[in-house]
Amino acid sequence: MFHVIIMAGGSGTRFWPESRQSRPKQLLPILGAEPLITETANRLSPLVPHENIWVVTNQTQASGVRAALPDIPESNILLEPCARNTAPCVGLAAAVIQSQDPDATLAFLPADHQISPPEDFQRALRAGAAAAETEGVFVTFGVPPTHAATGYGYIHRGELIGEHESISCFAVESFKEKPDADTAKEFLRDGNYLWNSGIFVWKASTILNAIKEHMPDLATGLDRLVKNWGEADWASSLEKEYPSFPSVPVDIGIMEKVSGVQVLETPFHWSDIGSWHALYDELEKDSSGNVSVLPSGGQLMAHDSSGVLAYSSKNQMIAVLGLDDVVVVQSGDAILIAKRNRSEDVKLLTDRLREMGEDQLL
Amino acid sequence: MFHVIIMAGGSGTRFWPESRQSRPKQLLPILGAEPLITETANRLSPLVPHENIWVVTNQTQASGVRAALPDIPESNILLEPCARNTAPCVGLAAAVIQSQDPDATLAFLPADHQISPPEDFQRALRAGAAAAETEGVFVTFGVPPTHAATGYGYIHRGELIGEHESISCFAVESFKEKPDADTAKEFLRDGNYLWNSGIFVWKASTILNAIKEHMPDLATGLDRLVKNWGEADWASSLEKEYPSFPSVPVDIGIMEKVSGVQVLETPFHWSDIGSWHALYDELEKDSSGNVSVLPSGGQLMAHDSSGVLAYSSKNQMIAVLGLDDVVVVQSGDAILIAKRNRSEDVKLLTDRLREMGEDQLL
Repeated sequence: MFHVIIMAGGSGTRFWPESRQSRPKQLLPILGAEPLITETANRLSPLVPHENIWVVTNQTQASGVRAALPDIPESNILLEPCARNTAPCVGLAAAVIQSQDPDATLAFLPADHQISPPEDFQRALRAGAAAAETEGVFVTFGVPPTHAATGYGYIHRGELIGEHESISCFAVESFKEKPDADTAKEFLRDGNYLWNSGIFVWKASTILNAIKEHMPDLATGLDRLVKNWGEADWASSLEKEYPSFPSVPVDIGIMEKVSGVQVLETPFHWSDIGSWHALYDELEKDSSGNVSVLPSGGQLMAHDSSGVLAYSSKNQMIAVLGLDDVVVVQSGDAILIAKRNRSEDVKLLTDRLREMGEDQLL
Repeated sequence: MFHVIIMAGGSGTRFWPESRQSRPKQLLPILGAEPLITETANRLSPLVPHENIWVVTNQTQASGVRAALPDIPESNILLEPCARNTAPCVGLAAAVIQSQDPDATLAFLPADHQISPPEDFQRALRAGAAAAETEGVFVTFGVPPTHAATGYGYIHRGELIGEHESISCFAVESFKEKPDADTAKEFLRDGNYLWNSGIFVWKASTILNAIKEHMPDLATGLDRLVKNWGEADWASSLEKEYPSFPSVPVDIGIMEKVSGVQVLETPFHWSDIGSWHALYDELEKDSSGNVSVLPSGGQLMAHDSSGVLAYSSKNQMIAVLGLDDVVVVQSGDAILIAKRNRSEDVKLLTDRLREMGEDQLL
C-alpha cells in the first residue's frame, strides 16, 4: 500500500513574529486560508486514505498538529522526543509502517511547502510510486528552476531513464548543497540542475535495507524500538532509543551513498515559502504590487507605496505611506517592519532576541 | 492680574493613528512623559496661580482635559459648543475673565507645543505682560527660524522698539501666511522674518476694544453672553450665542487690522510638533538616529536601520530590519508605517478613512 509521511518538525523562526516556537510555519495559515499542514494533507486526500497519512512531529507541536489534522488517526502522529534530523525521522516512520504493512511504499514530504495544482502533485507522487515499486529505486523530485536561487539545494540530473504518468525520470548524478550566487547562475544556465524539493518516494524495504547498509547503528536501534510499536511502553521506548540516534540528514546519510537514485521532473508549481519575501511571491498582488493577509475585518491602506506585504492574524488597519517593498507583520506583542529583500535576515532578529533573553517573544 | 489661557481645540489628525477625534494631540504624552497640555500647564505653574490658568476646549475633549489638568478649577475650563476658530475663542475668554478681573492681562497659547527651557518661556511671558501693560499694545512672540520652514506662518518684524527682561521687542510690519519653499528661503536669508508661535499677550481691555471696533457683531454677542457668566443658564446661553459668532482667526480678524502690534523675539526653543517627523526632531536619538516612545515593557530593535521613530502606548517589540527614516506607530486597531519625510501626509490617510466611512478609526 501507498503511505505518505508528512515531516513537520520545523521550528520556523523565518516567519517571526507570526511564527513562534510553539506555532511554527506549518501550523500557520500564511497563505490566507488554512494552516499549511492542513493544505498539505488536503492535497493528499484524493491519493491515499486518511489512515495511510502519517505525521512525524515533536511534543511542542503535537496538539497544534492534531488540531490542524482532525481526520488523521492519532496513532499516525509520531512524536520525536528530540530533533535528530531527517535520517532517523525517515527510519522511524519506515520501520513503524513496515511493521504493519511489509510491502509498503512511502512518500516523505515537508509539511510547509506550497504546491499547485494538487492534481499534478498527485500525478507526480503516483509516478514516483510506480518507479519505486517497479524498479525498486530511490525517487526524488526536482523542480525546474525559474531563477538562480541560492536558498535551495540542487539535484544534478543525468541520463533520461524513462517516464511515468508523462513525467520524465532521470538518473541522479549528484546532490548539491545550497550554492553561492555564481554557482546558482551556472546551474541555471546549464539546464541539468533541479531544485531539491525535499520530497522522496521509496519502498519501506528499500530505505530500511539502505539504512542497514549505511547507518547500521540506526538500523539496530530501529529494530529494537519497533518491537514496541502499538504497545503501552511505546512512548517510553521511543524516549529511550531516539536520543541515541545519529543526527544526520537522509540526503547525506543515505541518498548520496546508494545507487539507483532517480529524479522526477516536477510538473507542479512549487515553493518552500522560506521567508516573508517568498510568501509575497506566492500571493496575488494588486496593480501596485501590494498584498495583505488579514482577517476579514483587517485592511491594508497603501498610499504612494508599492510592493508591500501586510500580515496580521488580528483585525488591523495597516496604513503604509510613501514606502516601497516592505513587509509589515503584526503578531501578538510584536511588530516587524522589514525591507522585503531583507526578510531572510529575520533570523538575525530572533538570534538577538535569544541573546537578550526575550524568550517570551520567540 | 495676569491670566493665561490655553487654547485646546485642535482635533489633531496629524498624529493618527495615535491621535483620534476624542484623543487629540494635546491629550497625548507624545514626548514620552505627560500629555502635552499637562506639560504646558506645568510650564505655567511658577508664573501664575492655578486659578489664573484657563482652558478653552470643546465637549468631546472636556473629560480628557479635566483629567490632564486636575489642579485647574473646573470653572476655568470653557467649553465651546462648536468650533469657531480663534477670534471668538479669544473674545470669549477675554470677556469672561474681564467680567471678574477688569484690569486683567491675558496670555493666549496653544496647548500642544513643545517649549524649553521653562524658565526662558516664563521670562518671555513676563516680558510680554510688561509690554502689554505699560504700552497697551498687542504682543506676539516670534521664533528666530533655524531653517526655511513652509509649515509655519511668519511675522515680518520692523524697527527695534526696546526690550523687556533682556528680550528684544520689535514693531510688526506684517503677518505672512505659510510660504512656499522659495519664499521661505528668502525669509530665512532676509533675517527679519520670525515664525509665528501662536502665542499672544494683551490686556483684556485692549483686545475687547479691538473686537468692538473690528468685529462689532462678535462684541455685541459677547456682551449679551457674558452677563450669564457664573449663572445656572451659562451653558445654554453659550450654546445659543456661540454658533452665531463668525468663524475667523484672531490674526486675520484683529491683529492684521490694529496698530501697535509688537513681536518679542523668543529666547526659548520652540516647536509646534506638527507631525511625526517634527516629533522625531524633538526627541533624543541613539547613535544610529533611532528613537522610540514606548512604555517601559516595549522596545525598538533596529537592525541595519537608521532614522527610525517607533511609537506605541502598548508594550510592543517593534523590530525594524533594513529600513531608514521610517515612522512606525501602533495604536489601538491601527498601524502606520510611513517614510518619515512623508509624515505630514498622514492627513491624506485620515481623509481617505473618512471617505471610506471608517469613522471608528478616526
